Amino acid sequence: MKKFLAVLAAFGLALSANAADKTYKLKLASTWESTTPVLGDAAKEFKRVVETLSDGRLEVRIDYPSKHKSPFGILDFVKGGQYDIGYTASYYYKGKDANTMFFTAVPFGMTATELRAWYEFGGGKQLEEKVYDKYNIKVFLAGDTGTQMGGWFKKEIKSVDDLKGLKIRIPGFGGEVMARVGATINTIPTGELYMALEMGTIDSVEWVSPAFDMGLGFHKIAKYYYTGWQEPSGQTQFFVNKKTYEKLPADLQAVIEAAANEVASMLNSRSFFDNAEYWAKMKAEYPDIEVRSFPQDVMDALRKASDEILDEEAAKDPLFKEILDSQRAFLAKAREWTKISEFSYIQKTTK
Amino acid sequence: MKKFLAVLAAFGLALSANAADKTYKLKLASTWESTTPVLGDAAKEFKRVVETLSDGRLEVRIDYPSKHKSPFGILDFVKGGQYDIGYTASYYYKGKDANTMFFTAVPFGMTATELRAWYEFGGGKQLEEKVYDKYNIKVFLAGDTGTQMGGWFKKEIKSVDDLKGLKIRIPGFGGEVMARVGATINTIPTGELYMALEMGTIDSVEWVSPAFDMGLGFHKIAKYYYTGWQEPSGQTQFFVNKKTYEKLPADLQAVIEAAANEVASMLNSRSFFDNAEYWAKMKAEYPDIEVRSFPQDVMDALRKASDEILDEEAAKDPLFKEILDSQRAFLAKAREWTKISEFSYIQKTTK
Repeated sequence: MKKFLAVLAAFGLALSANAADKTYKLKLASTWESTTPVLGDAAKEFKRVVETLSDGRLEVRIDYPSKHKSPFGILDFVKGGQYDIGYTASYYYKGKDANTMFFTAVPFGMTATELRAWYEFGGGKQLEEKVYDKYNIKVFLAGDTGTQMGGWFKKEIKSVDDLKGLKIRIPGFGGEVMARVGATINTIPTGELYMALEMGTIDSVEWVSPAFDMGLGFHKIAKYYYTGWQEPSGQTQFFVNKKTYEKLPADLQAVIEAAANEVASMLNSRSFFDNAEYWAKMKAEYPDIEVRSFPQDVMDALRKASDEILDEEAAKDPLFKEILDSQRAFLAKAREWTKISEFSYIQKTTK
Repeated sequence: MKKFLAVLAAFGLALSANAADKTYKLKLASTWESTTPVLGDAAKEFKRVVETLSDGRLEVRIDYPSKHKSPFGILDFVKGGQYDIGYTASYYYKGKDANTMFFTAVPFGMTATELRAWYEFGGGKQLEEKVYDKYNIKVFLAGDTGTQMGGWFKKEIKSVDDLKGLKIRIPGFGGEVMARVGATINTIPTGELYMALEMGTIDSVEWVSPAFDMGLGFHKIAKYYYTGWQEPSGQTQFFVNKKTYEKLPADLQAVIEAAANEVASMLNSRSFFDNAEYWAKMKAEYPDIEVRSFPQDVMDALRKASDEILDEEAAKDPLFKEILDSQRAFLAKAREWTKISEFSYIQKTTK
């Protein structure tokens, strides 16, 4: 298009601000720093794809938390129009609106593949619109970090009693569930977590997965790495201010959607790849790490607490109930298919 | 852009054929008919996204096999330039070039998630370029149909001996493996498969998965539905003629890539969603269907035969060996991560 404008200029023609080739400058606020593993590249990739696809008609400027100072304020930024676009995870706004949680992760809920299928073809997208319309936000999926680990524990968990009074750093819904089964939930700033775990201020820390965890070093001081139950998926999102979005011509609206999709594919694969690589590295360097899963009575107690919290919330809010029912109904079918296809394949062919 | 051209026309300006806004007409040949479950919509979605993103500067015309008559001739069509783009699966060209197989599915190989991570970040894309450069084809991933079922069997398979002489319809590499363990492989046209299974001309038929299988009715006459081993993934591809691709401006090249990506996301979710829905429907209507997995000795025999065939081919062709080694090395790491993350989550939280 720039070449074409030069041709026009040669004819002595200038373009009015309303012409189809107007350039739109979009400001993007990211929850994660540029240096965060896996997620740090997503906003950059979005900018690259948007600018290439639009041949420069869309320009994206990215602000990271070091600049905007509010990693969990992205919803308000985009709602209020301070930023046109936000890169974040829906469930960070659970305190503001419990319904946002369903689009990132639900304890004992859907895996990344199941969640995305529900979203695209099982009514999830329409339910998400019901949630975000009141914030004047249009949402695009931006990739999934996959099943999270259950966290690093200094001692083995052999029964529900071992959780009573245990000092665990686990945020969000997972933390609420752990509190209900008797654990003591701590909120300690990231920079102090290692020391807190080493000193015994906390007995356990739930973070993410090997690619994210390794840099923080928890594996050096807590040898039990528990498998996950609290975040079977980790779907991230682009929030787009509706007024900004609606004033774009149709092809540039499609560019936003396509770019989000490319980021999502990249992020899905990047998360998986990096976790596989870091897990191999971690095991090689620290062969004493032991992977454990919670015993059945612990899983049952966590599931019961999780279901109770979900049902309590559903009793208060019809939209929460509508989304919960929709996810539970699809999960029942989805898991039956998962079990006889990919799950069975892995179970029967992996030594 | 069309509005803009109208503005130009009002100024009495016409565009030369070489201007940046030239329209490119692309012919696309699809392996699958428009009516094929799941896959039949992919080419249509590609056309829709390409034309929207390019604001009409790219136009796509789709030909289905009912027109071009050669569902498995897509590689030659695109290589020769009769078609600019092909929508197909790489492994259909295994007879022409064994290396094409690695990018769709390998028995006992990677799942869809593992394969895509290897492709994007583990060197897979570069190896695919080595394979397809000689055909003047640029390849874009177009979505995965997921883990296939092992097929419909009229009798239970209790040991390797039960496979000896068993008449199975199973094409491709899976068929070669089954032949090596003693089965008799039949190639019967699709339209005759149901009758052949009913009459006992064949004892078993491997097709795809519930969304694809249900319409063919095999579940009415063969009650054992075996879990899969032969196609843990089912990655489809867009082939693009390199000369066509290289003459496009950078933003339209990016449009092709972005559209392929959107099709891939759609197809991944659509396959999963439809399989979940059809499996629920099939079980409800035919409660006698029994899901089985091959016993360990059968799995061991199939894996041994598969590895032998792969190693024989690797001994003949250094590029085959390079790709096989790369996939095996990544799979070893990838599966360890899969096991402690999503697999463990499903295993420990699903009743």
